[in-house]
Formats: sequence, structure tokens, C-alpha cells
Amino acid sequence: MIYDIVVHNCTVLTVNPDFDVIDNGIVCIRDTLIEKIQTRAETAGLPSAKKTIDAKGAIVLPGLVNTHTHLPMTLFRGLADDLPLHDWLEKYIFPAEKKYMTPENVRIGSQLACAEMIMSGTTTCCDGYFFEDEVAAAVRESGLRATLGQGVIDFAAPGIQNPSDNIKHALVYIEKLLNASPLIRPSIFCHSPYTCSSQTLKAAKSAAASNQLLFQIHAAETKQEWDNIYTDHGKSPIQYLDQTGVLDHNTLLVHCVWVDDDDIDIIAKRNATVSHNPVSNMKLASGIAPVDKLLNAGISVGLGTDGSASNNNLDLFGVMDICAKLHKVHTLNPTALDAGTVLQMATILGAKTIGLEKNIGSLEIGKQADLIMVDTCKPHLTPMYNPASHLVYAADGSDVKTVIIGGQVVMEDSRLISMNLEEILEQAAAIAGLISC
Amino acid sequence: MIYDIVVHNCTVLTVNPDFDVIDNGIVCIRDTLIEKIQTRAETAGLPSAKKTIDAKGAIVLPGLVNTHTHLPMTLFRGLADDLPLHDWLEKYIFPAEKKYMTPENVRIGSQLACAEMIMSGTTTCCDGYFFEDEVAAAVRESGLRATLGQGVIDFAAPGIQNPSDNIKHALVYIEKLLNASPLIRPSIFCHSPYTCSSQTLKAAKSAAASNQLLFQIHAAETKQEWDNIYTDHGKSPIQYLDQTGVLDHNTLLVHCVWVDDDDIDIIAKRNATVSHNPVSNMKLASGIAPVDKLLNAGISVGLGTDGSASNNNLDLFGVMDICAKLHKVHTLNPTALDAGTVLQMATILGAKTIGLEKNIGSLEIGKQADLIMVDTCKPHLTPMYNPASHLVYAADGSDVKTVIIGGQVVMEDSRLISMNLEEILEQAAAIAGLISC
Repeated sequence: MIYDIVVHNCTVLTVNPDFDVIDNGIVCIRDTLIEKIQTRAETAGLPSAKKTIDAKGAIVLPGLVNTHTHLPMTLFRGLADDLPLHDWLEKYIFPAEKKYMTPENVRIGSQLACAEMIMSGTTTCCDGYFFEDEVAAAVRESGLRATLGQGVIDFAAPGIQNPSDNIKHALVYIEKLLNASPLIRPSIFCHSPYTCSSQTLKAAKSAAASNQLLFQIHAAETKQEWDNIYTDHGKSPIQYLDQTGVLDHNTLLVHCVWVDDDDIDIIAKRNATVSHNPVSNMKLASGIAPVDKLLNAGISVGLGTDGSASNNNLDLFGVMDICAKLHKVHTLNPTALDAGTVLQMATILGAKTIGLEKNIGSLEIGKQADLIMVDTCKPHLTPMYNPASHLVYAADGSDVKTVIIGGQVVMEDSRLISMNLEEILEQAAAIAGLISC
Repeated sequence: MIYDIVVHNCTVLTVNPDFDVIDNGIVCIRDTLIEKIQTRAETAGLPSAKKTIDAKGAIVLPGLVNTHTHLPMTLFRGLADDLPLHDWLEKYIFPAEKKYMTPENVRIGSQLACAEMIMSGTTTCCDGYFFEDEVAAAVRESGLRATLGQGVIDFAAPGIQNPSDNIKHALVYIEKLLNASPLIRPSIFCHSPYTCSSQTLKAAKSAAASNQLLFQIHAAETKQEWDNIYTDHGKSPIQYLDQTGVLDHNTLLVHCVWVDDDDIDIIAKRNATVSHNPVSNMKLASGIAPVDKLLNAGISVGLGTDGSASNNNLDLFGVMDICAKLHKVHTLNPTALDAGTVLQMATILGAKTIGLEKNIGSLEIGKQADLIMVDTCKPHLTPMYNPASHLVYAADGSDVKTVIIGGQVVMEDSRLISMNLEEILEQAAAIAGLISC
């Protein structure tokens, strides 16, 4: 009975249904799974293991789940900020995508994103972009777990000159990725109800559903979107999507800023899930999603960073902090979205939004060994009364020192193991040197 | 002509009036001052110096100015969160202060805060607390620059059993600190218009004014404060403070969340300054200050973290990020508070709020050599199109690797030089082990 990995000398924040916190904990891993979690008895030795990791007092918690990314957009980080949304998209982001998002650049941008996510404690992401097979190649190399959606939109897009081919492309992509890796699940990412016709929406949902895959879509992000959909269809974006028949438990609605009580009822009734991206919604001045109401309606709400062009990083610790505080000030209620709730959104609820809650999102026996270690021997994390408070209100991604995904150590003592960081940084900088708008 | 320090191989973000950014820059320091800033000529050698620092491509910028802290409260970091404001104060913070804020603990909590501030790029802070001479001892040891206000309140407080002695204590403190260190300026910190009588306010302002020192006061922080002051005095907090005669260019108004156009006119007319603490205001659900209006009225607005019990860290990079994004979403205007403006708030405008803009807050010849280096060889800071954008929207305090204050290197390559970090962390943890509420 030799384990593959034993982690000890840590506070284990399990995020299990009882939100158990285990002091002086041990986590035992065999193959890809967690086999034991317990307090180390005062006098007991450590279980035998091929690899023993002394966490040196770190907080060990489930790897974070980023429910909304556009990984290749790391290449546009800081390219354009502080602009009206329309100018930002039309004058900078769309032209840059058209000009620079080649398959090779998509791969390198995704490698950069994977390095950043691992180094800041994310172990699973849910992505949507074009040339998504290139994104998948980067993710696979990195050792991350991911749900990766091929983009569908009724305009020409990277890799899809003729938009009428968009579903065909998506089906080829699904076929290619379906059994390619145990860590990667393909998905379809429809851009939005205002950039896809109802025909496209239905076809895309059908393509995803036929393989029981996740269907992702930006929905109710901005007031302008709401107004446009209402003008065209006489309904709110959520009502309109419901009418097209795309809402069910395998549908992830991204943003849901402009939703009212009726919309929330629909989302709850259809068992659809929501990705909340407060940092991006703030930076683009989209608005503030009614997260308390969504949660109270029993809807699974996970956290996302959105792409690096509108955040501008992929650090979910920052998102947790801002999420907890934004909703307090927005509702003028300091008890809104407490640290424990937000930590659940970044882990087990996030897993639930993408249908992975049985495998990941908490540290429990029999679940996948996706865990991260947060070094607390730092001034800003000293003293410590409550680990959950520190993770949400004081830590940031750079406090993560070791990351294990599916039983594989991908970062140890702040050193990225699965990827060549220096090479990735150089390649990304070289591409950026050629980019101008 | 040998310099004390020459920094090279960096992008210098000066935050001078033209917001000049100097690629391949050199900064030359002699004694406490900046003597030269320029682009390094392709073929030129480096100027002679006792110490040469290769910044390895870092962004060099003015050290950040934290305009509102309660340094010893690091000891209460995460002690109580997610509570109604009244419960938080009355049931947790005030009793804990009464019981645990001994002179020794004030000093250790302040040492912890100084270590945290230096390590996250703050070189100047403006503090208000009790036993402020102990705070000063910690600050002096750390090498930070600071304006340190002895607390005045009409209740018993740490070190002041009899509140009628509060001004006497403040005067003794001023006398003691007035010429004790070139980096430290004493100040008086009146708690608020609702905890100090008009008599106390006037006496405290007079004590500060007689030495041309800064008078700090929490003002218009919460709706409850506004209501109470209006009930008692028939005026808004700002109007009331104006009536007592305490508003002038040496008055720093902390928070100013609940201010209307008339209040803003008064603040502008009196040349008083404002410390904006968005993260604390969010976490305590106090509200959102009208920063755009304050700035448009020509008022100097700096950034503050507030104490670690309501933030919960002292990282001004986090405050910059949240400040820029919060006001965008609050006004639904993505062009509000752009990165450059926010960077000015954290540097030169912050310096102006505490009367130090001629000495610090920008990198200019003849100014004090207070500068920090931000390591950009990291995934979340790659690629780089615009240094200001990265500093506000993507970086955090842990990206700071080297810190110079008044020509002294206090941190180099992420290693704190001026203080014994391990000892401070141990002492703070030991004190926390005794704290319970």
C-alpha cells in the first residue's frame, strides 16, 4: 500500500459539503485520485509514498475552476484599455484577432495562459475560442484539466472564412477531441444571442447535445445587448434563448448581468448554470450581475476571469476578492457573499457549472487529485485566524507554490514543471513585438 | 562624480507632469536624491557608482503612497469578516483593541505592516492610531517614509484612559516626533466627526496647525454617519467640519463616500485633500465615493488601503486595480479613471494629499530617491504594450522585487533587507495565538 504522493504539514480546506477544515492534515494520492484525507496523529509516522511533499504549513485546497476564459487573448493583454466598449471591440480587438490569430499564435497565447493559470492556482478552465484544437494542444501539454469550446459565430472568424461552415467546423473539432485526453472535454461555444441566428443557436446546441457536451454562450452581458435583443425579438436575452430551446443543464450562460427575476426563474427552471465574471464586467463597465439572487434561486454560479484583454490577468484569487467585495458594496450589505460562499463559487460550484462536480471541486476521497498549496509564511497572510478569509480577502495567485492536477505535480515550490516558462515568455513577447493596431 | 546607486536596464515610468516613459532607462542616485534620469545611449557605458543595479527589464516607478493606514491592525487581519458593520466594530474590533493593543503589540503589528508594505511596493504611508510613538519606532526601523498621526477620540483608547487627556497626549507625541527622523512627520488623527466633539476637533486642528502638521479625519464614510451628523447638527459631515473651521490645505479627509456636489465645492474651496479607500469601502459595504467628481473639482485624491481588518491586506496594487474598475462599473463608463489617472492617485496625487509632492510621488531630478522595481518576466505581465496598464490592471504587490527609499535599498531581489522578516512573522503569529473574541 504505497501511495504515489503524500502531502503533509498543512491545513486542508476541503470545500466538502460540511466545509471541513483539517488542521495538521495529510492528503494521500494514488494514481489520479485522492485516497485519504485526515489529521495526522501526534505520534504517527507518514504513510509510505513514492513522493512526500512537506507543505510547510501551507493551506491545501481544491484547485480553482475558471469557468470562462479565452486563452489565446493573453497575447492582447493591455493592448487596449479604458475605451468605450464599441471602440475597444471594433477598433482594436476584432481587427487584431483577424490579423494575428493564426493557429501558431493561438497555441502560443494558450501556452502563456496555461502557465499563468497553473502558477496562480487554477487547475481547470472552461474556454471558448477559435482554432480550439490548438488551444487543446497547449492545454494538454500543460497538464491542466479543461472544457474547451470551439467558437461558433455568424461572422468570418479565425479559421472559419465562411461562417456558414461554423457548425461543420465545430463537429469536426468535437470528433477530433472527444476521446483525445482524459483531462480535456470538448464543448461548443456560441458567441452570443446577438451574433448567432436562432438557426445557428439551435444547430450548435444540437451538435453539443448529441455528445452530451457543454454548450457555452455569452448572455445578457450588456445593456446594449438587452436592448438589441428586445428590439429584435420582443424578449429579454434569457427569454429569447429559452424560446430557441438551448437552455438545459448542459448550458453555461456567461455573464448574466442584465437579468431580472423572470429571467432568473427561467434559468433555475431549466437547470442552466452561470459563469460570473465580475472583474471583466467592471472593466468593460457592463454592469453588476445579481449574484445573490442567482444563488438564492438555487442556480450554480461559478467564477470566471474572462479573457486577458478585459481583466487583465487570469488570477482567480483576484476574482474571488473582488466578487466578495463588489456585491457587498452593491447591495450595501457587508454580509453578502461571505468568504466561504465565494470559495465554493471558485471550486465546487464552478465544477458544477461545467458538469464536473462529481470529479473535482472539493478534496474528498475518490475525487480527482486536483489540489493547490498556498504559502502563508508571508506578511500579508500573517497572522491567520481563518483560512477561507485569507484565501478570499488577502491572498493572490502568486501565493500558490505547488499545484497537482489529476495526481501529477505540474508546479512545485513555485517552479513550473510541465512547461518551459522561459521559452513561452520569449515567444509571446516576440509575437507581441509584431502586433500593432 | 561617483553615484551611490545606478539603476539600469529598465523602463522608467516617471509619473512626471508629462507622464514620460523612458525605455532602456538609467536612474542615478546620490545620497537621498535622484540626480539623473535618462535613456542609456546604445554604445554608452554606465556611470560610475558604488552600487549598480541591473533591473533586468523591470518597470521602475515612484514608490507608492498609501494615504490611509492603521498599521497595528495587521494583528486583526481576518479576525472577523462578513459581519454587519456595527457588530464588527462593537463585538470584535473595539474589544480586541481594548484588550490586546499594548505598546508592544502595537509595535509588532506595525513591524508586520511595514514589512508587508515594503514588499508590495509602498514607500510612504499616512497612518493614524494610538501609541503612535510605537508605530513610529517600527516605521523608523523599516526605512519607510511616513506621516504618523496620534489618535484623538472622545472615548478611552489604547494608552489614553481618560479621553479628556487626548489632546495633551497628542501634543506630547508631536513634541517627541517632530525632529526625530527625516523620513517621519508627526500628525494628528482625529477619529471622526461623530466620535469627537466640536471642541475636540478644534483643539486637535489647532495643535496640528501650530506645527504646520497634517490633520487627518475619517469623514462621510457611511450613510449612518451622515444621518447621525445631520440629526445632531442639521448639516452634512463635510458642512459640519467646515463650520468647525478644521478644513484647510493641511486637512486630509478620509473616505468621503457620502458627499454631494455642495460638499465637494466646500472641500475644493478649502483646498482640503481626500484619501480614497475603495477596497475597505466595498468590504464594509460603506458605499462608493464619487471620485470622478472629486478629481474634476480639482481636489487631490490619493489612494489608501485602510487597516488590515477591513481590506485585508496593504497591497496598493490591488487598490489601484479595484479603484479603476469599480468606478467604471459604477458610472457604466469604461473610460472612467484610466490607468494613468489611477497611477497618479497612487503616487504624485497621494503625495499631494499629505503635502509631500515636492519631495516624492514622481521620479524627477532633485526629488527623493523613493522608487520600486516591478519584475515583468512573469506570465501575467507578458506581453507588455503599456507599462501603466500592466501596473494597474495586471500586476500585484508580489511583483515588486526591489525597493529604494530615500536612497536606501530596503528590499533587493524580493529579499527584505531592513527588517528581520522571519522574526516578525513569528512574533505576530505568537500574539495572534493569544487573541480571541
